[in-house]
Amino acid sequence: MITNKINFNEKFSKFNDYWSPRIIAELNDYQFKVVKIKDEFVWHSHTHTDEAFIVLDGEMWIKFTNKEIHLSKGEMFVVPKGIDHKPYAKKECKVLIIEPKGVINTGENYGELTKTNEEWI
Amino acid sequence: MITNKINFNEKFSKFNDYWSPRIIAELNDYQFKVVKIKDEFVWHSHTHTDEAFIVLDGEMWIKFTNKEIHLSKGEMFVVPKGIDHKPYAKKECKVLIIEPKGVINTGENYGELTKTNEEWI
Repeated sequence: MITNKINFNEKFSKFNDYWSPRIIAELNDYQFKVVKIKDEFVWHSHTHTDEAFIVLDGEMWIKFTNKEIHLSKGEMFVVPKGIDHKPYAKKECKVLIIEPKGVINTGENYGELTKTNEEWI
Repeated sequence: MITNKINFNEKFSKFNDYWSPRIIAELNDYQFKVVKIKDEFVWHSHTHTDEAFIVLDGEMWIKFTNKEIHLSKGEMFVVPKGIDHKPYAKKECKVLIIEPKGVINTGENYGELTKTNEEWI
C-alpha cells in the first residue's frame, strides 16, 4: 500500500510533551519516531539493538560513561546495543529516532519516563 | 564501540556524482546512505524490503504506476517492498536512504546505474 508522505514539522506540531516518542512510519520491522526532548533523560541501554538519533532541530548531547557526544541539526549518531547512555538537551530539541519495533525508551531502567505504549501520530 | 557523530553536510561535501549512494552508518543490519540525485532513475522494485527516503535538501519525486509522491526538505517516504517506483529530481537533491544491508539500488533492473559495491564515506 502506498501511503502519504510524512512531513516532520507537521508531526511535531501535534504534540508538546518531552521524552514521549511518537511513531510516524515503519520500515519492515523498524520504526521511525519523532520526539521532543529537553533536560535530562535517564541512564539506560538497549540490550538487543542499536538506536539511531537524527537531530532535526536544535542540539542535544548523549552522555556515555567516559565520553559525551554533541549533536546539532543535520547530524546523527548510532548508539550501539548494550551501551549505557543518557541523552539530554539544554533547550528543546527535535529528534528522529530509528529502531526496531517494540524497543522501550528507557531500556530496563523503568520509571516515570518509561513509555510502553508509544502511539502513532 | 562508540564511533564519531555523522554530519550530513560534511558527508555530501565529499562526492559529486549522482545516483551513487554512500554508506555513512549502520544500525544492526540496516544501513544509512547519503545520495545526490538529479534527473531520472530507472523503474525498479525491491522484492524483500521496504526502503525509506528522507529529503535533506532540495526536492524529489517518486513515480509509482498510478501515483506520484513529491518530497521536499524535511519530508520522508517509505516505499513498500515489491512496489515499482522511479525516483527523479529536477535539480540536485540530497537524500538519506535507510534500508537493510545488501540492497541493490536498481533492484533487479540492472544497468549502468546499478551500484553493486556501495562504499563507505
